Amino acid sequence: MSGLSESQVIQLLSEYGGLQRPDVVLGIGDDGAVLQPPVGQQLVQVVDALFEGVHFPRGMDGEDLAWRAFAVNISDIAAMGAEPAWATLVLSMPAAEESWVRAFARGLGDCTRQFNISLVGGDTVRGPLGVSVQITGFVPTGQALRRQGAAEGDGIYITGRTGLAAAGLACLQGEIQQQDEPEQWRQRFLRPEPRLRQGRDLRGVASACLDISDGLLRDLGRLLEASSVGATVFLEKIPGLDELSALVGEQRAVSLALTGGDDYELCFTVPREHEARLAERVREWSCECTRIGEISGTEGIRLMKDERETPLPAPGFEHF
Amino acid sequence: MSGLSESQVIQLLSEYGGLQRPDVVLGIGDDGAVLQPPVGQQLVQVVDALFEGVHFPRGMDGEDLAWRAFAVNISDIAAMGAEPAWATLVLSMPAAEESWVRAFARGLGDCTRQFNISLVGGDTVRGPLGVSVQITGFVPTGQALRRQGAAEGDGIYITGRTGLAAAGLACLQGEIQQQDEPEQWRQRFLRPEPRLRQGRDLRGVASACLDISDGLLRDLGRLLEASSVGATVFLEKIPGLDELSALVGEQRAVSLALTGGDDYELCFTVPREHEARLAERVREWSCECTRIGEISGTEGIRLMKDERETPLPAPGFEHF
Repeated sequence: MSGLSESQVIQLLSEYGGLQRPDVVLGIGDDGAVLQPPVGQQLVQVVDALFEGVHFPRGMDGEDLAWRAFAVNISDIAAMGAEPAWATLVLSMPAAEESWVRAFARGLGDCTRQFNISLVGGDTVRGPLGVSVQITGFVPTGQALRRQGAAEGDGIYITGRTGLAAAGLACLQGEIQQQDEPEQWRQRFLRPEPRLRQGRDLRGVASACLDISDGLLRDLGRLLEASSVGATVFLEKIPGLDELSALVGEQRAVSLALTGGDDYELCFTVPREHEARLAERVREWSCECTRIGEISGTEGIRLMKDERETPLPAPGFEHF
Repeated sequence: MSGLSESQVIQLLSEYGGLQRPDVVLGIGDDGAVLQPPVGQQLVQVVDALFEGVHFPRGMDGEDLAWRAFAVNISDIAAMGAEPAWATLVLSMPAAEESWVRAFARGLGDCTRQFNISLVGGDTVRGPLGVSVQITGFVPTGQALRRQGAAEGDGIYITGRTGLAAAGLACLQGEIQQQDEPEQWRQRFLRPEPRLRQGRDLRGVASACLDISDGLLRDLGRLLEASSVGATVFLEKIPGLDELSALVGEQRAVSLALTGGDDYELCFTVPREHEARLAERVREWSCECTRIGEISGTEGIRLMKDERETPLPAPGFEHF
């Protein structure tokens, strides 16, 4: 169990993450990276930090942590309708233990290779375990998806299912204990799959879009606020709710699906005239896509169950 | 003493740091920022993190800390010969105490306005005090300054003076106690001035360049390694060494000037045929610029004192 020097850590991370992209003129190893921006595209920059005990439980495997730290940022890139390209990393850790750093580097390498991202800079520091990732991506000029833009009558959609990652975290933390707990839940927390393909396909289709990181209702609320509209959401349309209810009970299932964090699914709105085009594109997706409600002119979210309004569950994750 | 919510913190930081640049299409407030890259320029990306107790002493004022966190990154941009444009920030703090966050936001605002930088994204998290900043800048295509490129016979130069920031830190930590300790020292630690003008003027003049953050000899060593050359450095040419010696003694002065960290001056090499052009440009600088030695073909650094080789002082700061 040897401790690595800072330069050895950087060496390992660059080996695994230093994918050769032709637009990286100069990568890790100088005061800064030199990058060739694409023609006809705008840049999208996202940043997200994960700290032990706040965003992930203590003792998380280095490989999973690295994947997760990159995936949640790629999810933001996806929500903007962009393609990721370059990443920088700040890794804070109590000790530079070689096997842990190697596992982290492997997870980083897997995720960056899969999504064609080059790690172009970083900093390591001794401190409590934390990972900050910043990613720059590209989007055709003027086509970025924003939170603002939803209008009355637009359909509200989500990709995949919500609440499963939160269920997985609850299992990891021993809060949900069951013998037949689906392994898929934990994977949804540990290895979120950014919806890049979906985000790209929503350009010119969605009127507004974001990714669900802090719970469906909370994030939908942000989209509504940015667009100055309200929404009606139909509980019976939430995908997978029956299955989840069968395992953890209805009340908990509703709470997980509507307020559980860490889903990294996309929530977006589509004007009626684009819904047919969306349906075409969805046919080629490998994930579900469900219309869960509709944008209204009245502020706030109305949750409907069996054609009657029902109270919203208590809100999800708050950082401070 | 009220605690702020995460959205209030973000609100404050964006108010102070959200300088309107025409190339910021969409700033803070969505899943990512949308940015318009310049034509005919390459991008330079740098990232640097400062954590309490590692990179700065406990109890540092929020305003100074913000300035410092941005300035050290701008210094890397300067060392590449680039102009800063867009920044993202990850701020980790134990509590979101309003007066501290306001002070931090002021320091951030001062620094970003002075150097024409727009804060385009960020994340805040509860944890030990730490600041990670990432800056993207522009440099005309092919003109970035690198660590690699120094050749035998090139002059070795530094801007300003080294060792003063380390002396300032030693004062702040009570390691140096003297009644007439120059206030300037502490300022050099608390408020480093990135050498942006100088870096820009070195395009087409310097054969290699970096900024001095971990001590002159250590950073010069990195430049030499990247360029596969060695150096002869003349102790009597190190600027300000006599004055520093008079205050703290010769041995400590040499150690501070050659191995003390946090200078954020530039160290660069200039081929003989460009030295006249450098002299012309230096005339318009508001800081000193001193030729302290010469690149040699022999590996390593030879330190000369009164025409005789003298041992190198012990090395400076090591992060791990």
